[in-house]
Amino acid sequence: MAELNYKIVETIAVISESPKGWTKELNVISWNGRPPKYDLRDWAPGKEKMGKGVTLTEEEIVQLKKALANLNALSE
Amino acid sequence: MAELNYKIVETIAVISESPKGWTKELNVISWNGRPPKYDLRDWAPGKEKMGKGVTLTEEEIVQLKKALANLNALSE
Repeated sequence: MAELNYKIVETIAVISESPKGWTKELNVISWNGRPPKYDLRDWAPGKEKMGKGVTLTEEEIVQLKKALANLNALSE
Repeated sequence: MAELNYKIVETIAVISESPKGWTKELNVISWNGRPPKYDLRDWAPGKEKMGKGVTLTEEEIVQLKKALANLNALSE
């Protein structure tokens, strides 16, 4: 696998934590020096490993926000 | 790679579509006959291939919804 260079610009939220300490996080990450994107994925403790995840553009995050806001079943 | 059996129970939203027709979607999916979970990932046209993605529990979706709702920079 190609080596990935990344910088976590901002941690927006830690969505969950597993018993082994892996966390699912929404971050803003710059990959290989490119402009930062939103990123939702699992991380090992101390960010030693990363799990699979998705990156999202600003427009995609806006659409996701709208979709979740309309998800009435998930109202608190 | 192990063969994956899945059933898309519900498509909640199509978040974006690429020029080549890949879509980023929030679905409710049952993997290998297990109880359905939320799933955010890219799909090829006609669901012929799937890209990397994340699955989320109901509780994780609630936390993600809260995080995005608080993201003022993304207000419409």
